[in-house]
Amino acid sequence: MLSQAQKKFLTSLKQKKYRKEHGVFVSEGLKIVRELLQSELEVTGVYGTSEGIDSLQDVLDRAKTVFTISASDLERISNLKTPNQVFAVAKQPQQVCTPHSTDSKLTLALDSIQDPGNLGTIIRTADWFGIRNVLCSHSTADIFSPKVVQASMGSFLRVNVVYTNLADYFSKFYLHTHIFGTFPEGNSIFSEAIPENAFLVIGNESVGISPDLVPFIRRRLTIPGSSHLRSVTGAESLNASVAAGIIMAWATQSDSR
Amino acid sequence: MLSQAQKKFLTSLKQKKYRKEHGVFVSEGLKIVRELLQSELEVTGVYGTSEGIDSLQDVLDRAKTVFTISASDLERISNLKTPNQVFAVAKQPQQVCTPHSTDSKLTLALDSIQDPGNLGTIIRTADWFGIRNVLCSHSTADIFSPKVVQASMGSFLRVNVVYTNLADYFSKFYLHTHIFGTFPEGNSIFSEAIPENAFLVIGNESVGISPDLVPFIRRRLTIPGSSHLRSVTGAESLNASVAAGIIMAWATQSDSR
Repeated sequence: MLSQAQKKFLTSLKQKKYRKEHGVFVSEGLKIVRELLQSELEVTGVYGTSEGIDSLQDVLDRAKTVFTISASDLERISNLKTPNQVFAVAKQPQQVCTPHSTDSKLTLALDSIQDPGNLGTIIRTADWFGIRNVLCSHSTADIFSPKVVQASMGSFLRVNVVYTNLADYFSKFYLHTHIFGTFPEGNSIFSEAIPENAFLVIGNESVGISPDLVPFIRRRLTIPGSSHLRSVTGAESLNASVAAGIIMAWATQSDSR
Repeated sequence: MLSQAQKKFLTSLKQKKYRKEHGVFVSEGLKIVRELLQSELEVTGVYGTSEGIDSLQDVLDRAKTVFTISASDLERISNLKTPNQVFAVAKQPQQVCTPHSTDSKLTLALDSIQDPGNLGTIIRTADWFGIRNVLCSHSTADIFSPKVVQASMGSFLRVNVVYTNLADYFSKFYLHTHIFGTFPEGNSIFSEAIPENAFLVIGNESVGISPDLVPFIRRRLTIPGSSHLRSVTGAESLNASVAAGIIMAWATQSDSR
C-alpha cells in the first residue's frame, strides 16, 4: 500500500516542474516498463498490481525499488484512462546534441510542436526510420510528459531528443548545412532529393515555422495534395505528425530507391 | 441561458447511442462550425458565447436555432478542455458507398481503427490527398464522436465515410479489384505501383488486419524502416495514421511523378 507521501510524490509528476525538480519521468504499461527496465536508464521505482509485478519478474532486478499496490492506488497515480498493471519512475537521461557525428541521414528540428501526441508520434516515426537526433525548440512540448512518453511507445529511449534555441543553433553553421522546412507553398517533396546530414524543420501545428527560423531555411518543401494537383477543395493542412512522417519516409527511403 | 433539459440533451450527445437516436453529431470551435454552416448539412442548433455568435453572424442564417450562452454553460456542454466560443449540433449526413463511381484513385478500408484521433487524422489526410471514400468496419471508432470530428478538422464534411462489413463487401467483387493491405512483412511500398481504383486496407492499431480479411488481400505492403534496411533496432511499428498517410502520399503522388 502506498503512503500519502508516496501518492503525493507520484501524482506530482504529472507536472513538468516536479519532473524537472526530481529529474525523473514516468511511464506506464507492461510493454514500455519492460523496455525501460531493459534500457540503460536508472529506474528508481516500479509500482504495479501483483499480476503486473509477476509478469516483470525476470527484469525487476534493474529497479531500485518495487512496490505491489492495489488497483485503486494504481488508478490514483496513473495518467491513463485505463491503467495497465504497472507504473515506473526513471531518471531523465542526459541528452547531448551531436547531430554531425551520427550515421543518420536526417536530423529533425521541431519548432514549437505543442501537441504531446504529435511529439510522441514524431519520435516514434523517427525511430522507425533510423533518425537518431531530434532537436526541439524550448517551446516544444516536454518529451517527459506522460502523454508524449506513451505516444512514443518506447522510442524516446532510442532517439536523442535535445531542447535548444534553434535560431542560435542554426546560426552557428547554417552555411555548411542543408536546412529544409515545411511550408504551405514550396517545392514538392517528391521532386526533391534530401542530401546527407540535412536538417528538416517541422513548424508549429497552427502557425508553422516561426519567423526567426525562416532565414536559415534553404529549401521550402510542400507535400502536394489534391488542391495543388487538381485544384479541388480539400483539407487546409496535414496533421504535423503525418506530414513529418511522409517527409521522413521520403527522405530516408531515397537511400534504397 | 440553457434550460436543464437542453443541457441534458447536449451533454447526452457525448454518447454514441444518443447521437444515433437523434441522428445528430456535435462540432466545436469557430473554424469548424463556420465550415459546417457553409456545408450542405442541416445545422439544428448553434450555441455560443456572445463573441462567438457575433463572429459567425454572416453565416448564422443557415442554423435552425441560435443560442447565446454563458462561458460556464459552454464549458458544461463542451467536449474540449478549452472550449472555443461555439458549439453546434447538426444532422448526420446519409453516407452511401459508391467507390467505383468516383474519380479518386484509392479507396481506404479501415479495419477496426480504434483511436478517435487516428480515425480523424486519417480522414483529414484522405481529404488532403483527394481520396473521396473511406470504408470502415463496424468495429472502427464512430466518425461522429466529438474527438473524431475535431481531429478530422472539417474533413469529415468532404470525405464519404461508410460503415460496412468489409468481408462481405470485398467478397462481392474482390476478383476484379486490387486490394492492398499493410503488414509487418510485405513488399516495400516504394517498389509497388498502386493501380487505379485500388483499395487499401489499414489494420487495427494493435493486432493489424483481421484474419477474415486476409484472404482478400492481393498484395501485402510494408513501409520499410531502419530495421528492414539496416538491421538496426528501432520502433516496432508506426502509428496507424502515420502509416496510412505515408501510403496515401505514395499512392496518390504516383500520378504526378
